[in-house]
Amino acid sequence: MGLKIYLADERGLKKSMSKDENRNLNVWMTTKRIETLVDGIFAIAMTLLVLSLDVPQLTYPVNNAVMLQSLASISGHFYIYALSFFLLAVFWRINHIQFYRIKKFNQTLLWINIIWLMFVALVPFSTNLVGDYGYNQVADVFFHLNMFFIGVFYSLNWYYADKKNYIDESMDQDMINQNKKANLILPSVALIAIALTFISPAWSSMAYFLIYFMKKLF
Amino acid sequence: MGLKIYLADERGLKKSMSKDENRNLNVWMTTKRIETLVDGIFAIAMTLLVLSLDVPQLTYPVNNAVMLQSLASISGHFYIYALSFFLLAVFWRINHIQFYRIKKFNQTLLWINIIWLMFVALVPFSTNLVGDYGYNQVADVFFHLNMFFIGVFYSLNWYYADKKNYIDESMDQDMINQNKKANLILPSVALIAIALTFISPAWSSMAYFLIYFMKKLF
Amino acid sequence: MGLKIYLADERGLKKSMSKDENRNLNVWMTTKRIETLVDGIFAIAMTLLVLSLDVPQLTYPVNNAVMLQSLASISGHFYIYALSFFLLAVFWRINHIQFYRIKKFNQTLLWINIIWLMFVALVPFSTNLVGDYGYNQVADVFFHLNMFFIGVFYSLNWYYADKKNYIDESMDQDMINQNKKANLILPSVALIAIALTFISPAWSSMAYFLIYFMKKLF
Amino acid sequence: MGLKIYLADERGLKKSMSKDENRNLNVWMTTKRIETLVDGIFAIAMTLLVLSLDVPQLTYPVNNAVMLQSLASISGHFYIYALSFFLLAVFWRINHIQFYRIKKFNQTLLWINIIWLMFVALVPFSTNLVGDYGYNQVADVFFHLNMFFIGVFYSLNWYYADKKNYIDESMDQDMINQNKKANLILPSVALIAIALTFISPAWSSMAYFLIYFMKKLF
Repeated sequence: MGLKIYLADERGLKKSMSKDENRNLNVWMTTKRIETLVDGIFAIAMTLLVLSLDVPQLTYPVNNAVMLQSLASISGHFYIYALSFFLLAVFWRINHIQFYRIKKFNQTLLWINIIWLMFVALVPFSTNLVGDYGYNQVADVFFHLNMFFIGVFYSLNWYYADKKNYIDESMDQDMINQNKKANLILPSVALIAIALTFISPAWSSMAYFLIYFMKKLF
Repeated sequence: MGLKIYLADERGLKKSMSKDENRNLNVWMTTKRIETLVDGIFAIAMTLLVLSLDVPQLTYPVNNAVMLQSLASISGHFYIYALSFFLLAVFWRINHIQFYRIKKFNQTLLWINIIWLMFVALVPFSTNLVGDYGYNQVADVFFHLNMFFIGVFYSLNWYYADKKNYIDESMDQDMINQNKKANLILPSVALIAIALTFISPAWSSMAYFLIYFMKKLF
Repeated sequence: MGLKIYLADERGLKKSMSKDENRNLNVWMTTKRIETLVDGIFAIAMTLLVLSLDVPQLTYPVNNAVMLQSLASISGHFYIYALSFFLLAVFWRINHIQFYRIKKFNQTLLWINIIWLMFVALVPFSTNLVGDYGYNQVADVFFHLNMFFIGVFYSLNWYYADKKNYIDESMDQDMINQNKKANLILPSVALIAIALTFISPAWSSMAYFLIYFMKKLF
Repeated sequence: MGLKIYLADERGLKKSMSKDENRNLNVWMTTKRIETLVDGIFAIAMTLLVLSLDVPQLTYPVNNAVMLQSLASISGHFYIYALSFFLLAVFWRINHIQFYRIKKFNQTLLWINIIWLMFVALVPFSTNLVGDYGYNQVADVFFHLNMFFIGVFYSLNWYYADKKNYIDESMDQDMINQNKKANLILPSVALIAIALTFISPAWSSMAYFLIYFMKKLF
């Protein structure tokens, strides 16, 4: 998926590399390679969320009142479907903004991103769990922890890229630091949501609407 | 998935941006970025439709008459599978025609598209619901509302892009307005389908065949 | 997914189009646009086949003999999984060979391909059906008809592209006709498989191994 | 998905081909074509792993202790989900490193890769099986055999590409042989895991952590 292009670039690059660099192909890497996987996993995870919506099992014949009531009874599923869809869209956007500025990649950064993707791919499960047991505190904490770790790993991604000087020179240190702060919004909100589960598990996910007011994030 | 290319372009663009524009990276955006996600979600949603077709559960041994009858009994599922597949293909085509002409993008347009995608990704659920309860009015209205909102959001997409002057200059105002009218076909047909559910829920989806006669749409 | 590139091309093309051609944007089209969807749907359909393999439901504790026997009992599922995977790989390859030579596209060709994709996306269902009821003639005929229509529609694709003179001039009429004949192999084999169901439903799918001996196909 | 680009290249190439080469289009091929499919199948297989995590079915109302216990009871599923996700990420990385160096492709190499992908797409099933029956030796051997064959087929891919002289000249024979040895790590580890199932099925998958210590692999 698009790989073709940068292969051409890589071959050009490859030729200009010394034999030594060539041997060391495990270290050399560009952001483009991992982006391919990121885009695919996001599109699939966002679409798989729909599987958390189970068609109600009703006995024939079903009249309008029964159907309306059964759809209303899964309204919690619709809410969490929409919320997870939006959150994944936000994460995908953040990833694009960050990758656009990261000019180099190494093994550590690759594995930070793989672990991050593992938590992203877990979202359909967490969504399903909260859809079924939204009133249960443990289920909600599980969902919020999933979001928390997604936030932690993309913060780590940016933090590590800065430390290693992998960020494009078009971005000055002020902007990098500003981004670092913005990256802390989601993990903070997830922690607030976890705290809210002690008051009301079912309403704890409302915490994510705080992201909207912390506009700088996206 | 193809991201690689425009990253190169973006970097070029980035260098030519002033420091001020660079800081404001949340505003700057091209249509290409969101297209990546759109294409992925469409391919997946269209393929996930097949999951709405459940293999009949029959007790061994099954003779030909029983199998034929059980396949016939899910013929409604096959019909709605084919219909949803075609409608998604039409939406995907409309999106390509529109994105091809939109030269700029901002946050609002991004979120219009994200909400639109949320309704697109919901189609496998609606399809499943109508497949199981095609005789029920509420189920059919749910399906038609799903299609209605898909139509509303891509109309909004085009309308907003025009208002903000984001449409390519190769398209004159006549053509833009013609497209605006064409965009209203699907929402109108969905409303007709909703009206038809009061006469016959099971046949209401026939309304979508009207799209064929309103050829300008696609 | 790669869309970015041809968008650039299209914009170039767009500028060189007269106002009249520009208005007529519904007619103009390249093969690249539909390829995006084709590649996505194939990758997903091939991977969704795995969902036809159900993990056996056994009561705890399960000893080795029971597990071996239960895996053996779904060996028919493994066989049909592998067969469908290979057939989809063959279809994907044929599509690439054909699209590589088709230089133009119109609405009719688009819809021939959409219907073709609808049958491609149906393969996981057919595979599942035969996996569960491989001994049943109706189930096998359903599977073979699915393959038959896939073959018919890519034949139609090529036939129509030739009739409309959309095939690249690098291919002379001899090669085009040779391809036309090759395209008839799969539909023929599917018809042979249907005939074989009258002798033995379970063994009818062996007909597809004939493709191997008709090497010119792929 | 990215196909667009190399189509352009291919057309250029096509024109420079003699009529004879043109006729022989089934033989000619680049690595880019198959990469499209590889990237799609990996993204989907990695995301489908989440379907092996079933939301526990509990009777209302569920208190925190019950939910915690039921999540703990599927901890084996989480472990195998994470392990399979990492292994697939490693295979995807190996594929990229190898394809980056393979400059030509033929039918045999295509089918080696298709069979390899068939085992890759099988991973969600194996993962599911071990998630449900991790204590059972046959289930674990099935999982390890799946990994073994994935390793065998990408070794075969590299071995065959070397034999046919399809590897880029930027890589000298020393590096090619080094890669050959590295490719044997996964199959070896899978065999060790199979041996370990005779001691403890549940712990046998710990063998894959040996990959970490054989760093040259990735």
